[in-house]
Amino acid sequence: MTQTEDSMKKINTFREERDWRQFHKEKDLALSITLEASELLELYQWKTSEEGNQQTERLKEELADVLIYSYMLADNLGFDIDEIIAEKLVKNAMKYPVEKSKGKR
Amino acid sequence: MTQTEDSMKKINTFREERDWRQFHKEKDLALSITLEASELLELYQWKTSEEGNQQTERLKEELADVLIYSYMLADNLGFDIDEIIAEKLVKNAMKYPVEKSKGKR
Amino acid sequence: MTQTEDSMKKINTFREERDWRQFHKEKDLALSITLEASELLELYQWKTSEEGNQQTERLKEELADVLIYSYMLADNLGFDIDEIIAEKLVKNAMKYPVEKSKGKR
Amino acid sequence: MTQTEDSMKKINTFREERDWRQFHKEKDLALSITLEASELLELYQWKTSEEGNQQTERLKEELADVLIYSYMLADNLGFDIDEIIAEKLVKNAMKYPVEKSKGKR
Repeated sequence: MTQTEDSMKKINTFREERDWRQFHKEKDLALSITLEASELLELYQWKTSEEGNQQTERLKEELADVLIYSYMLADNLGFDIDEIIAEKLVKNAMKYPVEKSKGKR
Repeated sequence: MTQTEDSMKKINTFREERDWRQFHKEKDLALSITLEASELLELYQWKTSEEGNQQTERLKEELADVLIYSYMLADNLGFDIDEIIAEKLVKNAMKYPVEKSKGKR
Repeated sequence: MTQTEDSMKKINTFREERDWRQFHKEKDLALSITLEASELLELYQWKTSEEGNQQTERLKEELADVLIYSYMLADNLGFDIDEIIAEKLVKNAMKYPVEKSKGKR
Repeated sequence: MTQTEDSMKKINTFREERDWRQFHKEKDLALSITLEASELLELYQWKTSEEGNQQTERLKEELADVLIYSYMLADNLGFDIDEIIAEKLVKNAMKYPVEKSKGKR
């Protein structure tokens, strides 16, 4: 079992032990990713990156929440995390060729 | 190298080849996670889960974007993806004990 | 008719002419406010406030979209825009008394 | 003074009494609109519209927060609330002509 599969298994065990899969409709999982992303972003509200970065524990927690809901949605939809990342990077590389994109926002 | 480390390496190679790390301040990465989460959620706007789920390719792309920016922020902050997921699940398990949470929203 | 009522009337006329009220479930309106807020925020992605502020036309459009969906949700729920603003400012003033809050983030 | 101008005046008085305008950079105001929109959307997480709609007081508060930050951003950028709403509705009407859009999502 790979490391990603191991994380996925822990996440699924967590929700299955609580019989929570019945609530995890995909629309609500996508909605929950947005809510957790906002809680993460809130750690930088009225702050510079440097100031926000100080909150290590809270950053770990909120970023983990984004990841956990993302993994759940991937699992519900039958997506392989590492595969969709690799595929998207290939698409991005075609959209932003190195020679044209280097050093440009 | 684990699978998560392999995905992280691909993501970092992508941004380093384009000399984009200089733009990747943590506040803007957190902001970008929120924006990509919204693009993912948009696939379910005015739709049921079942209707939204039909858009497989777009779902893969938008979910991958959420993950890619999440991995970049983790890397910037020195967090291990699988570790912060495991730690958060332990905290969630204490907050939501199986016996009290089973089958409840 | 007050100015806010006039804006609300224009918004309601727009959706009624298109027979769109049937789609405007409150959960989807709240979701749409989030999506439009993200499109507004996107104008500041990888930018300073000063850089983002240059995009006057797009800022007007995206901010208007946030407001339009907010007005629709208020109308669906029977809320008076100016009233809920006034009430929330009273609550905020109690939470953040001038003497304790002045000049502090 | 119109009703919208009256709400705007109350909002500006609130932030000026606390000397908070100095913190209200436009990027952070746009970010704050997103955060408040998420808190509003959270009232519908794992719920139907009908279930979410029961939380009248919290809905009023969170929707008011979205509006208050939207008004602040409009004021910072010199936009007239009712004017940008009216202009956007004209654009939307051209994009979605009644005859082609009626009854369609």
